[in-house]
Amino acid sequence: MSGFFISFEGGEGSGKTTQIKLLANWIQSVWRGKVTVTREPGGTLGAELIRKLLVTGDKERWDSVTEALLMTASRRDNLMRIIKPALDEGDVVITDRFFDSTSVYQGVVGGVEPAIIEALNTLCLDHICPKVTILLDIDPEIGLQRSNRSENDETRFEDKGLAFHQNVRKAYLDLAKEDQDRVMVVDASRNEKAIHDDIIAQLEPILRAAQ
Amino acid sequence: MSGFFISFEGGEGSGKTTQIKLLANWIQSVWRGKVTVTREPGGTLGAELIRKLLVTGDKERWDSVTEALLMTASRRDNLMRIIKPALDEGDVVITDRFFDSTSVYQGVVGGVEPAIIEALNTLCLDHICPKVTILLDIDPEIGLQRSNRSENDETRFEDKGLAFHQNVRKAYLDLAKEDQDRVMVVDASRNEKAIHDDIIAQLEPILRAAQ
Repeated sequence: MSGFFISFEGGEGSGKTTQIKLLANWIQSVWRGKVTVTREPGGTLGAELIRKLLVTGDKERWDSVTEALLMTASRRDNLMRIIKPALDEGDVVITDRFFDSTSVYQGVVGGVEPAIIEALNTLCLDHICPKVTILLDIDPEIGLQRSNRSENDETRFEDKGLAFHQNVRKAYLDLAKEDQDRVMVVDASRNEKAIHDDIIAQLEPILRAAQ
Repeated sequence: MSGFFISFEGGEGSGKTTQIKLLANWIQSVWRGKVTVTREPGGTLGAELIRKLLVTGDKERWDSVTEALLMTASRRDNLMRIIKPALDEGDVVITDRFFDSTSVYQGVVGGVEPAIIEALNTLCLDHICPKVTILLDIDPEIGLQRSNRSENDETRFEDKGLAFHQNVRKAYLDLAKEDQDRVMVVDASRNEKAIHDDIIAQLEPILRAAQ
């Protein structure tokens, strides 16, 4: 495995989709690297079907443990069919969410015991871990406003209310503090270009060192 | 939790559906107990949706770890919404398959490492375990013939071929040997009535002792 694995994390409306697009373009046109972009839950045909079960419907549709199992199933499918083969090809792989989402949403906030999260995040993912995780940090009041602008039926997590999303933000920041070597916190309240420039400034030396 | 939890296990065409129906009737009319019947994967609305992903489509649709995760998600949903509440009410709960199916199909036969199976079967199921497991044992050549008679699109596991099903049978019998206190092996090559009478003869004293 010779590629470079990057995950984006953050709450609703933190701008992950936009920043991933900008970063992918930069990698292709400036860095001149091959890039594979994927998202979670989803990414593959099977994982998108699981995504449908996870992001639509009533917010109490699944308990947190079931949710963590479904998330990990979707992640595993995406990992084995998209991420791992692309890393083996030497690509830069960017994923919209990876295992930190489960640690935060189902673990810290959802109350699933650490032993379960640990088992799912390590045992079931062939010990593959992002080299860099970019955490787009934003006040959920602003994030949810942005997010609600987009019209779709994937509102199961957005529907969980402000307190939930404040807990998500705190859990992400705690996680970043514990794993500073991997997780890069980026202030996502700024405009798109400022955020992108910040990401490149921090990421470029790491990519260079990894060559 | 004051109920009595029974799981049925066995390969394709071993007659689980029929024997569960006969046993449920016996519990209601002879034993005069309240009975709840469920099946896996499935049992609840959510779990039936997961079932659809698992039992239809190409036989290589998921790798064994992903399959184990989806199975456990379906099981967890069924456990929390149907099995646990019914046991709390004091019911006899009969399920068509439980965690032994994952140990056998995804673990021994599918090659998922024991640590993953162990984590999924214990951590994710609130340490709830059947008091009795009835293993309907049959030569897969006969079982598959019987099973193919039923017309439906849930053929993903049946499609896996005879060698696969012979491995399943062997894995079940090994598991029964290791856990003789829980797993009761029943020769399922006989006629329906003979099998049912055998199950009752073995089960009645256990139910009586548990009262």
